[in-house]
Order: sequence, then structure tokens, then C-alpha cells
Amino acid sequence: MTSPSPNGQPVLEPLRVAMLGCGVVGSEVVRLLTDQASDLQARVGRPLELVGIAVRRLNRTRPGIDPSLFTTDAEALVRRPDVDLVVEVIGGIEPARSLILSALGNGASVVTANKALLAEDGVTLFAAAEKAGVDLYFEASVAGAIPIIRPLRESLVGDEVTSVIGIVNGTTNFILDKMDTDGAGFAETLAEAQALGYAEADPTADVDGFDAAAKAAILSSLAFHSRVTSADVYREGITEVTSTDISSARAMGCVVKLLAICQLSPADPDHPERERTVSVRVHPAMIPRSHPLASVGGAYNAVFIESQFAGRLMFYGPGAGGAPTASAVLGDLVTVARNRLRGAAGPGESSYAARPVSPIGNVITRYHLSLEVADVAGVLATIAQCFAEHGVSIQTVRQQGREADAQLVIVTHRASDAALSATVEALRGLDVVRDVTSVMRVEGE
Amino acid sequence: MTSPSPNGQPVLEPLRVAMLGCGVVGSEVVRLLTDQASDLQARVGRPLELVGIAVRRLNRTRPGIDPSLFTTDAEALVRRPDVDLVVEVIGGIEPARSLILSALGNGASVVTANKALLAEDGVTLFAAAEKAGVDLYFEASVAGAIPIIRPLRESLVGDEVTSVIGIVNGTTNFILDKMDTDGAGFAETLAEAQALGYAEADPTADVDGFDAAAKAAILSSLAFHSRVTSADVYREGITEVTSTDISSARAMGCVVKLLAICQLSPADPDHPERERTVSVRVHPAMIPRSHPLASVGGAYNAVFIESQFAGRLMFYGPGAGGAPTASAVLGDLVTVARNRLRGAAGPGESSYAARPVSPIGNVITRYHLSLEVADVAGVLATIAQCFAEHGVSIQTVRQQGREADAQLVIVTHRASDAALSATVEALRGLDVVRDVTSVMRVEGE
Repeated sequence: MTSPSPNGQPVLEPLRVAMLGCGVVGSEVVRLLTDQASDLQARVGRPLELVGIAVRRLNRTRPGIDPSLFTTDAEALVRRPDVDLVVEVIGGIEPARSLILSALGNGASVVTANKALLAEDGVTLFAAAEKAGVDLYFEASVAGAIPIIRPLRESLVGDEVTSVIGIVNGTTNFILDKMDTDGAGFAETLAEAQALGYAEADPTADVDGFDAAAKAAILSSLAFHSRVTSADVYREGITEVTSTDISSARAMGCVVKLLAICQLSPADPDHPERERTVSVRVHPAMIPRSHPLASVGGAYNAVFIESQFAGRLMFYGPGAGGAPTASAVLGDLVTVARNRLRGAAGPGESSYAARPVSPIGNVITRYHLSLEVADVAGVLATIAQCFAEHGVSIQTVRQQGREADAQLVIVTHRASDAALSATVEALRGLDVVRDVTSVMRVEGE
Repeated sequence: MTSPSPNGQPVLEPLRVAMLGCGVVGSEVVRLLTDQASDLQARVGRPLELVGIAVRRLNRTRPGIDPSLFTTDAEALVRRPDVDLVVEVIGGIEPARSLILSALGNGASVVTANKALLAEDGVTLFAAAEKAGVDLYFEASVAGAIPIIRPLRESLVGDEVTSVIGIVNGTTNFILDKMDTDGAGFAETLAEAQALGYAEADPTADVDGFDAAAKAAILSSLAFHSRVTSADVYREGITEVTSTDISSARAMGCVVKLLAICQLSPADPDHPERERTVSVRVHPAMIPRSHPLASVGGAYNAVFIESQFAGRLMFYGPGAGGAPTASAVLGDLVTVARNRLRGAAGPGESSYAARPVSPIGNVITRYHLSLEVADVAGVLATIAQCFAEHGVSIQTVRQQGREADAQLVIVTHRASDAALSATVEALRGLDVVRDVTSVMRVEGE
């Protein structure tokens, strides 16, 4: 592994790194690999040498990076026999999946930030890593620089995690936070976020909750030792959130957040044979201002974990951005490099518990509803009757006159999503109800 | 490694665990090992079998634990040839150190919660683990259930950590929080904390800052890849904190917290050859109410990390208690068990950077001083002159008459601890100064 140098000191053979992608995150990874080279060498025990960067187009200028490193032939790069470690920061399903599988098949360890791919087809990747006896690490895939994968895979592995609730999408948190501060509506706040670079030109992945849903799938797979994919995640985005919802939340001492909620159903002591299930959902929700997640502002992320023995933990930090994500990638890169030198691999997929995912209808939580109703005597009685018939108990009602009509704001006690949905459908059929203008879950109490 | 069972299924050979100590944490570890046995087996790949528990006295009743497991011969237990894993939850320096060294020498991997020992003589333990090719894990030694060792050893290992500021002692945080809420003094709040079980009968280790100093030594060793021991940590406890300090902090929009502060001096771009140094200190400090650490209440702990690429991260959770600490121990136990089955060890000591520890006098921060002064004309000019002569710049002065005397509350701009100490000594020599009643650092801005 060593060869003599001209001055007689042994030269350490480097571990060779191939990069796939060189966008915002990739270029920061290159900068870290260069700036911190001597520290990384000391921490790994060998130099990390970047031997190639696969990009789509060669003609883009990338200042500070040796142009001879770039190639458009990603497949050839990951198949190079001298490559030890592959960093994938392209994103998306293909060609990322094929390239990662080629790299693993070639015996390289892989570090990826690709939440969409892991949430859609992690099982194929984990199986390939297991077969090759190499590592697949993915700390950067959820909540940027915040260590959350490693705590779930390792720190809490002796405990029983019962709930993971996260603010895992910075764009939507920025928008909701702005709406709360400025009292503005969704559309104008989105436009502002786009102008400031906090939201993409096509904001669908963020505002419709796809990004958060992928992260929820990854978190719940790890937390509950089960396989959960994006398709298992119930998903609502923030496009329907109105400034009225936000001011109504405020009146209740709450804020509106887009939450990724992963929960394990409690064991039934009377029926220990009953299978415990996992529920995974992403939707806007009202949470009390006193909840630790309520004060997570701007583009920050946070993940709140409850476990049987450790109790309540929270992890907080920058959830996106080139440098923070690169920090997470490099932490993984050093770890898999060390594992490689020791001839060992870190923890693989743990899905032994194989908990089934229960449908959204089974979720039990509280609800906040806004209704436009006719301002006539007896309307509240009619509406209360409708809730009672569906087994949904009302906690508070606030009524405010509005010319001929009135607005009712109703907060329920805990009820199943199925019961609530049936209630809303029935309410829409009542003559006195002009419209059900908003339904939002209330969490964190 | 497997043998046939009566029903023809292979029986997995267990990994054998010896426990040293069976107090609050130890008995929770036993409960977790028992309650979660089948989950732990699935996660490790083999059963974990508890084969012995060393205790000081056999005659204490420990409900729910098989009495045949107990022994008073700890040395014989850790030398048993069939023991794979040793959990040390005795605490203190001896006999814990000798027993851990025997266990490592015997080829067992060790999980410990012993901050005092690690902070005093970690180097001997790490060297013994390295020599034996086994693991020494210690997540439970700092901040209970909060994953903080693993994030520093692994997640942030590709980054440059520049600062770690923690509330790492639950007892003192409980007392300071109570003093803030109730306006009570230190002595009566300590008595209340003792009555509630939040403080020990002998509270020295907590209130004098020894416990936090040990944790600060461990955190700074990991964060800065250097060796830092308890003796390197500047330490002040909370026994001198008065209700006046706390109300004065409140008037400034601050709270008083006992902080463990670990900092790396910035690189000097004009003199890259200059050695960067580490400062490590534990003392009460005023921090703004808007700082993320300010809202950490009661017996909770939190650690706030700043790094070059990841930015600002915070980790929050229960910092002590049997079940949370046991969760951290079990997370380590599963990890070292997996490593053992793979024939590999996790990361060892990383002290290559060997940063020197700089003395407290070099620390630069802000200060809050309370002075009793004669209420005569020109007193402020005399005092301001004294600060100026020592190069300490005053930010604000608040004066309030008190019969013949007056009280001055002074907040400085950033100054070195040495300059501030010299100023205080000179102030005490002034005729117009009756007393310097309080000096407290102001952090987190």
C-alpha cells in the first residue's frame, strides 16, 4: 500500500474518489476535498484523491476545478478499476440508479444525497451494496447537514423509536414562515421565495410535498426497521394554505408548518399478537407555538424524535444548501473510507420488523375546520349534529358574522381521518353549509 | 458460530455481555436488554446474552433481575474468556479504569458512560483499545441520550468544527432555570432541587462545574482532534450566581446558563504558519433569550455546534436519567456488537491535530460587572478611566442610587479575560469602589 518517495518517506497510496455531478453540492464537495485535504488524510489514514467528475456538459466553466477531471462518460468513470469511492450528487432516478449499481458492482463504496432514489428504490441499492460487501451511506439525503441518518441507524438502534416528526423541506418552511410574518398569501410569497433563490422556478417538488415525502419514507424505514417507499406516504402540499388559515392558527396560539410525520402504532398490551403498524404522512399542520418545532424559522430544518427510553430529542440545523450538504457528504466519505481501510462495512439495511403501512384513514389526530355557513338560527345545532353522527367530538367553535353568512371555525378532539373525511363530505351536503373552506390537522399536543 | 437446536433450526451463538455496576443506569440497561431482546437480536444478527453483573454488595434487592447474575468479583467477570462485550456504568476513576483495561486486554469491546475517567485518562483507554483491536464507545458519557459523540466522531468528521457550546449538566440548568422563574437565591433553589431529586446530597460535582468540565474535555477532544483533559478546562461553578445577576441578565434580555464552551481559534490568513489553539471553559454566562440555548429548560441538555461548512447545528434532549442514558449505552452496544461480528472496529482516538490549549486569559468575550460605588460626583469618570487604561471598552452603564452608595452595572465590549481581570483588580483598589459584587461573561452574540 505504500511506495518510497524521492525523500525516502513512504508515500501513502490514496483512496480514489469519483464524483457524479458537479452542481451546487458537488462543487462544494470538491472545494472541501481540496481545502481540507491534509485534515481528511489525517482522519482517514490515507489521502483522498479526486480522479474524475462526471458532468452532462463539458463546456460550462467551473472555476477552481482542474478541467481535466471532467468527463461526460459517467458509466466509464464508475467502472474504472482504480476507483474506491463514488459520490453521487446528480439526483433523480435515472441515470443515478444505474450508475450507483455499476459503482457498487465494481466494488466501490457509494455516498449519495439522492432522497428521491432511496425513497423509490432503496431496496435495490441496499441489496447491491450488501452483495458487494461495500458501503452505501446517505446522511445528506435528509435534512442537509443535520446528522439524522446516523442517529437513527446507530445511536438509537438499541431503543424503540415511536415517532419522528420533521420540518425537512426548507423551501416550504421559508414560505410558511414568511406568510406568518407578513400576512401574505401563498402565491405572492412563493414568487418572493423564487426571487430570493429559496424556491426553484418549478417549485412542484417542494410545494407539493414530494421532497418531504421522500425524506419521510427514508426516516420511517430507518426508525421502524421496515421498508417504506415514497408511494406509501400520504402527501398534501402547501399550495392550499391561505393567509386565513395562518391567522386562524395564530388565534389558537399555533403556527402552520409542513410536517413529515412518521409514527409507530402503540403495542396493545391486551393483544400482544396484534401487528403494529407504521403511518407516514406529509401535510401542513397547526402546531402550538410552544412546540420545539414551532420556532424553526426560515430555511432551517429540524427533526423531533420520540423513543421509549431516550425520550424526546430534537436535531436542528441548515436543511439544504451546497456547503451544509457537502459537509454531510464528506462525513460519510471519511466514514466509508475508514471502513474500507479496515476491510469492513457499516450497517446495512435493517428491515426485519417489516411493519405494514396503515392507510391515512386510520390516523388519529385533531382537526381545524373553517366553514362558510348561513347565518340563521339553529345552524350550529345542525352542524354539531353532523359531527356527532360521525363520531367526531368538537372541542371549540368560534363564530363570526359576515354579512348574510357567518364563518365557523371548529377544532375537534382526536378523531380518525376516515371519520373526519366522512364528516366533511356530509357537511358539504348540508343546506346551511355554503362551503368547507379549509381543513387542517392539528399536531404536537 | 451456529449449532443445531432440537427443532433443527440453527441456534445462533450469543454475544456475551458483562455489566459493571447496577445503579440507576445499569438497571435500565438490564431492562432494555431483556425487554428488547428479540429486536436487539434482529438488529445485531445474534442474541445479546447478559452473563454477569458486578456490584459492590450482593444483599441489595434488585427486583426483576436474576440474582445468580450478580458477583462482587468484577475483575474475574471482565477476565472471563467467553465475555465479548463489557458495559461499564460504575463511574469514577478506580476501579473503573483497571476493569476497563482488563476487559480490553482480554479482547472484549467496551461501552462506558464514564465521563470523569475519559476526561482524566482517555488516552490510556484509547491506546489499550487500539492495541487490542477492539472498540471503546462512550456516547452516554456526554448529554445522556442526545447523540453527540457519534455526530462529532463521524458525521462532522469531513468538516471543520470551530465551536461547541453546551448545556451539559441538567442539575445546574434546573437550578438556574428555577432561580430565573422564581426569583429565588442559589442556596434555597439548591435545597429544593435536592428535595426533588434533581441534585445529589453532595452537589459538588454538579454545582462546582466538575461534571460539565469533564464533558467539555471530551467534546473538545473530539471536535478539534486533540487531547484535552479535565485539567485543561477553566472552570467556575454556579454557587456564586445571585438572584441579582439573574434579574440583571433579564433586564438585558438575557438568561444565565452554565455553559461548556469549546472553541478553536480562527486561522490567521496573514500568518498561516501560526498554530491554532483550543480554549475550553465552563462557567455561568449570560446569553440572549433569542439564542437557541436560552430556551433549554429544566434538566434538559443541548449542544450547539458551529462548523465551517455545516453551519449551526443544535442537538437537544434529556441529558441524564436512567432510561435515556441506557438508550445511549444500548445504541453503542448494538454498534460494537455489529463491528465485532464483522471483525472490525469503529473509529478510535483522533488527536492528530494536537492543538495546544490556550489559557483563560487569552479568551476574548464580553463581560457584565456589578459594582457598589460611592455616590459622589465624578465616580463614573474615574471608573471609565480605569477601564480605558486596561484597554477594555465599555458598551453600556446603568446606575441606580442606593442611599449613600450607588450600584453600577457595566457591560463591556469584547475584551480578553486577562485585560478584564486586570481591570477588576484595579477597580477593587479604587477609593470610590466599595465592592465588585459580580463579574459574569456574556456569550452567544
